[in-house]
Order: sequence, then C-alpha cells, then structure tokens
Amino acid sequence: MGGDVGPAAVVPGVLAALHGGVDCDLVLYGQQARVAAELGGAGAEPGIEIIDCNQEIPMDAAPAQAVRATPDSPIVRAMRDQRAGEVDAVVSAGSTGAMVAASLLILGRLPAAERPAIATFFPTVRGETLLLDAGANTQTTAELLLSFARMGDAYCRAMHHVASPAVGLLNIGSEPAKGNDLAVQTHQALRGSELNFVGNVEGNEVMVGECDVLITDGFTGNIVLKFVEGVAQFLNALARSGRLEPQELEGLKAFSVAIKRRFNYEIYGGAPLLGVAGVSIICHGRSSALAFTHAIRVADQQVRCRLPDLIAGALSGPAGREG
Amino acid sequence: MGGDVGPAAVVPGVLAALHGGVDCDLVLYGQQARVAAELGGAGAEPGIEIIDCNQEIPMDAAPAQAVRATPDSPIVRAMRDQRAGEVDAVVSAGSTGAMVAASLLILGRLPAAERPAIATFFPTVRGETLLLDAGANTQTTAELLLSFARMGDAYCRAMHHVASPAVGLLNIGSEPAKGNDLAVQTHQALRGSELNFVGNVEGNEVMVGECDVLITDGFTGNIVLKFVEGVAQFLNALARSGRLEPQELEGLKAFSVAIKRRFNYEIYGGAPLLGVAGVSIICHGRSSALAFTHAIRVADQQVRCRLPDLIAGALSGPAGREG
Repeated sequence: MGGDVGPAAVVPGVLAALHGGVDCDLVLYGQQARVAAELGGAGAEPGIEIIDCNQEIPMDAAPAQAVRATPDSPIVRAMRDQRAGEVDAVVSAGSTGAMVAASLLILGRLPAAERPAIATFFPTVRGETLLLDAGANTQTTAELLLSFARMGDAYCRAMHHVASPAVGLLNIGSEPAKGNDLAVQTHQALRGSELNFVGNVEGNEVMVGECDVLITDGFTGNIVLKFVEGVAQFLNALARSGRLEPQELEGLKAFSVAIKRRFNYEIYGGAPLLGVAGVSIICHGRSSALAFTHAIRVADQQVRCRLPDLIAGALSGPAGREG
Repeated sequence: MGGDVGPAAVVPGVLAALHGGVDCDLVLYGQQARVAAELGGAGAEPGIEIIDCNQEIPMDAAPAQAVRATPDSPIVRAMRDQRAGEVDAVVSAGSTGAMVAASLLILGRLPAAERPAIATFFPTVRGETLLLDAGANTQTTAELLLSFARMGDAYCRAMHHVASPAVGLLNIGSEPAKGNDLAVQTHQALRGSELNFVGNVEGNEVMVGECDVLITDGFTGNIVLKFVEGVAQFLNALARSGRLEPQELEGLKAFSVAIKRRFNYEIYGGAPLLGVAGVSIICHGRSSALAFTHAIRVADQQVRCRLPDLIAGALSGPAGREG
C-alpha cells in the first residue's frame, strides 16, 4: 500500500520480480480488494499471497506511537510475520520513520548494534558508494559511526563481493583535525579500527571518489541524499522554465535520459536498514515498479547471504571489539 | 597571487573590471615583478597600483599562525591597509582559512557579531539563494545561526534589494521538531525572531525553493556547497569515461554549456565574509578572470552601500535584540 502510487506500482513490481527470476514467494500486505484488483488474473499465480490489512500508518504520524496504534497496518503485520519466521524480509515504500520504528520495535536490534542505520547508494564515476547513515539517527557519536562503518563494510563484502571495502568519512577537509568534534573523533575511531579507512572525503569527492562505504551522521547524510534528488527536480524545473534555448533543452533531455538510464535510484531498489535482526528495506515514496523489482531482488540476496548474521558478526567479532 | 592560477587570472580580471565600468581604484598585492609582467602596458593605466609583497601564506598552514607569521603576505598587507583606511575592500582567492583569520585578526568583528559567516550563492529555479554559513564555523549554536540569519537578511535587503527576504533553515524535515538539537533550537529561535522565517527547507528544496536566505551550520553548509562542485566534476568524468553513447555525450555537452552560462559560480564572483568590520570577499581557488571581475564589482557595491554598517545595525538594532 505504501508510496505515492500504492498497489499500482507495488503489484507490477512484484510480478516483474517473480517473472524476472527472483526465486521467492511474495506476500502482499494491504487492502485485499485493492491489491486483488491490481493483481487481476495474476492473483491466481503460485508464489503470491495477499494478507488483508485494514489499518494504515499515516505518513505524518509520530513513528513509534503510530506503530503501536496500528497493529493491523501492512508494515506492522509484515514485521510481525518476519519476527515469527513466516516471512524472511520486508520491503515497503511506506513512511521511513514507521519502517525504522517497526523494525526496531518488532524485529529488534542485532545484539551488538546500539542503533540501526539507513544505508543508501550514491552513483560514482567508478560505480557506487554506500552512504550511511542516511537519516535513521539525528544525534550520534563516534562509536556509533564506527559501528555503522563496520555494518557498511560487512554489507559491501557480502552483497557487492568487495574484498576489502574502502571506508571514507564525509568531512570538510582532508586533514584529520578538520571538521566538528564528531568528525574529528570519528576520524580517530576509524583510523584506529581494523577497517580499510581511506580518510576524510570532502563533499565534492562523494561522486568522483573511490570509497565503497562513506560514513556520515544521519543529519548530514539525509541532507546530501535529498540534495541529489533536488538536482534532478531543479533540472526538470529548468527544462520547463522556458529559459533554455532549443538546443540547450534538447541537450538537457538527451542528458537526462542518459543519467536516468545509468544512475536512476530505481536500479538500487531501496535503502536497507542495517543493524536490525532481520531484513528491512525502505523504498522511496516515488518508487516505480522497477524500483520494487530491484528492492525485492536485493532483499532476496540479503536473506540468502544471511546478511543480519554477517553484520552481527562484524559488530561483535573475534577482534575483541567493543559492544 | 592567490588561487590556482595566480596573477594570470587575477590581472585580466582586474583589467576587465576597470574597463567594464567598475568605478574604483585597484591595488594589486603581490610579487611586483610577476604582477607587473602580467599587467604589461596596462601597468601604466590610472587606477592601478602594485604593492610589492615578498611572503606567501601556504595553502595548508594553520590559518591564524600563518597570518601572524607572514606580515608581508598579500592578504595580511591588504587587510592592514583596509584597517588603516588605505583600501576599502579586500578580494582574494588565497586560502579560505587565511582570509577568515586575517579578516578576524586585522579587521576584527563587528560589535555585535560573535562570529563571522561565509555566505555563498546557490542557483535556484527562481534565481539564487544566499546560503550561510558555508564553512567559517564548524561548532555553532542556535544564537549564532540566528545572528547569521540577520546578517543574510541585511545582505539581501542591501545588495539584492529584496524588501522582506524569506529565511529558511536547512533541515531534514518540515516539522519544527525535526532534526538534531541544533536544528530544533534554531527553528525556535528563527520563529521567535523579527525575520521573515519561512520554515525548514529539506535538501531537495535547496535549488527549487523560494528562500532568499538559507541558514545552516558551517559543517553541513560546506559539504553541500562542495557537493554541488562535485556534481560538475562527476559530469566531466562521465563525459570522459567512454561510457556514454554519442548522442548522450552530445546532450551532456550542450547541457553543460547551458548550465555554465546561467549558473556558473563565476557570475557570483566570490563568497563574502559577513560579520567582520570591513569588506572581505573570498574567491574560489579556481576563479577565472571573469570571477575576479564580478568579485570586484560585488566588493565595490558592498562598500558603496556600507554593508558592514548595515549588518552591524541588523545585529544590534532597535528591536532590543540580544548581543
């Protein structure tokens, strides 16, 4: 039911995942009638089940309260079913706050994870960088950011098959003493860790850099993430503004197609919430069917590689790490 | 002498400003021989003077120490001459840290300005937004950010002739309670002020929004500012990567020309340092002659409208403001 489009985007995404070779069963949580109508004849296919849910989590509600107040909402029922072992992963384009709250309250944290982090992917010249935290935490500490770096490191090893992920710290200068107190302390913590820490990464290096994992607090991470979306909105507004000459407008259109084809958030599917005892993937409110397809594929991959276990291991591994 | 290019960019910029109708005398601080060579025959023109300086501030030195250690560097001599009333404004593409330190140590703060802020311009669909602080302060408070808002408000009134500048707060959500402690407290301070506060502005709204002034701490501001530069570097790298098809590459090129023509930082000239007792404009290290021309024009305009006095008034005005 989640996202700006609801079942009209989710259901085609689910079907595309099933028909595109993702080998899993899919359980759709939502209003039976609306979901069934969207499924049409496909409702009878094997591997698809509908769980009728009769509550909704309002997008603007205080997350933890909303989760407690809506036991029959799709996110809460799906998380409960994951907790009970009925499903292995939850993918949703509902409220980010509700997904974080439901994951924490129902799945719980991994043993050594003090807080979860939202991981998100930035396109780079080389491929992509995993940025976290993209907004699960507004208050944070160097120890917390170190734990996020370990989670990101484990993610890149397991999911992207990177042998020794390069970990960077988003900061306002390259020297270790640059930045606010949090950035200076986090630099020290990362440098003293077992991770392949490559140092501070400035804002202009995010998309041209060589990091596999880029660490930042959830406030800065969220603003940078949304800023990228804003650039696309700015270009769209510019195209419609009437201020471009015909050949410039044509150039912008050709360029937009190229960018969209290669760097659309759709191909990343969604943002995994790392640090919870399960698989929880938060999709953008504007997710298309293609984005859902990829999110389901990523969820499937996370389940198969037992990502939560790998992250738990990374956080409380044999190296005598704290936590 | 400052910037990546030195006199080869500064001197043509100076000449273009003079010939383009900026009605002021220009004093060039630098190595006499190099500057004179660059000036050539133009050295004999009225309105141009060279002050021979025989020290340089290294780009990577600790700013305050470097300023104290190089009394014969161009930035230090120019600031001293401004302090003495020999010149009215200083424009430089030298080290940002050295410009901030020299402005503070030599010009001093305006009476009610606890700290200065670097103001910078973001292109928006509508025109531009003045973002501050872009990096003068890594540690900050709500009171400090409120004073930055007042400085930005005064700037837009005096320099852009905006009657009641719309002031926004960069944050991770629209609700007043969103964000970290600093953001929540700053929201309250701005809402309770005499300013035309339009609320929180999310990352995606920076370039499509309606703000005249956008307030943020120097850490976040610096990362967002540099991120924008990174998008341009990313596009350049993409163009050279061989990963684009011919028509996409052509589109990208046409698009880049359009963007550069309308939104090049060169047309903004430089970033004014607000809150110091004088006019201090920090140019990007990669500033072209055109950027220097515009920076000189903006400096001239700041002097003529007595911007420092207006900012001092805004900070300690009749409304019984603190400070």
